[in-house]
Amino acid sequence: MNKISVSEKFEQINHYWEPKIIGEVNDSYIKLAKFKDEFVWHVHEHEDEMFYVIQGTLTIRFRDGDVVLREHECMIVPKGVEHMPFAEEEVHVMLVEAKSTLNTGNVENEKTVKHLEKI
Amino acid sequence: MNKISVSEKFEQINHYWEPKIIGEVNDSYIKLAKFKDEFVWHVHEHEDEMFYVIQGTLTIRFRDGDVVLREHECMIVPKGVEHMPFAEEEVHVMLVEAKSTLNTGNVENEKTVKHLEKI
Repeated sequence: MNKISVSEKFEQINHYWEPKIIGEVNDSYIKLAKFKDEFVWHVHEHEDEMFYVIQGTLTIRFRDGDVVLREHECMIVPKGVEHMPFAEEEVHVMLVEAKSTLNTGNVENEKTVKHLEKI
Repeated sequence: MNKISVSEKFEQINHYWEPKIIGEVNDSYIKLAKFKDEFVWHVHEHEDEMFYVIQGTLTIRFRDGDVVLREHECMIVPKGVEHMPFAEEEVHVMLVEAKSTLNTGNVENEKTVKHLEKI
């Protein structure tokens, strides 16, 4: 039971779009991820997902428009809503997700990460 | 489904030790709170609790020692572990908690907040 330095954890993340688990709170994982460029359109049919921007700017594209999140802004994407994260420059994001959540949701492709590393 | 500015939400919080709900992610609430001075020793028997420091310094006292959290540091207090948050100066904290979590855990006193406001 130790404190977690989010900045130090980000130093251990070397690849975009590969969330790492930094802790678990009941049925959720707290994850950190670096994003850059486009992800993939997907939906989590049964799970809400929170994005909190620690550093940089994150765009979440929806079918009816974009939402731009800057530092200290967050958004909860409700289950069932199709979305695609996008970042022009590297962005550092904290995620709160159900333990069952797969990063690419209903899609499986080269960006799918089935076994998340704990850091 | 809108983005949430954490800074703007903190401007709406006028009392210490009264967490406000800013969103829900599956079975969890995301809460914001301002703390100052001592809280109360308590335990959540069945729920883990995450504290993430947005601004300021938070001390979490445990029976075997203190943990000091600064900006961008967080800690998950596992269920069953007695603790007491303390802040010498005002601190702004994000909490991730089960929807069932009561702020004072197994204790009920003047700091207990049973019905949390959504902001």
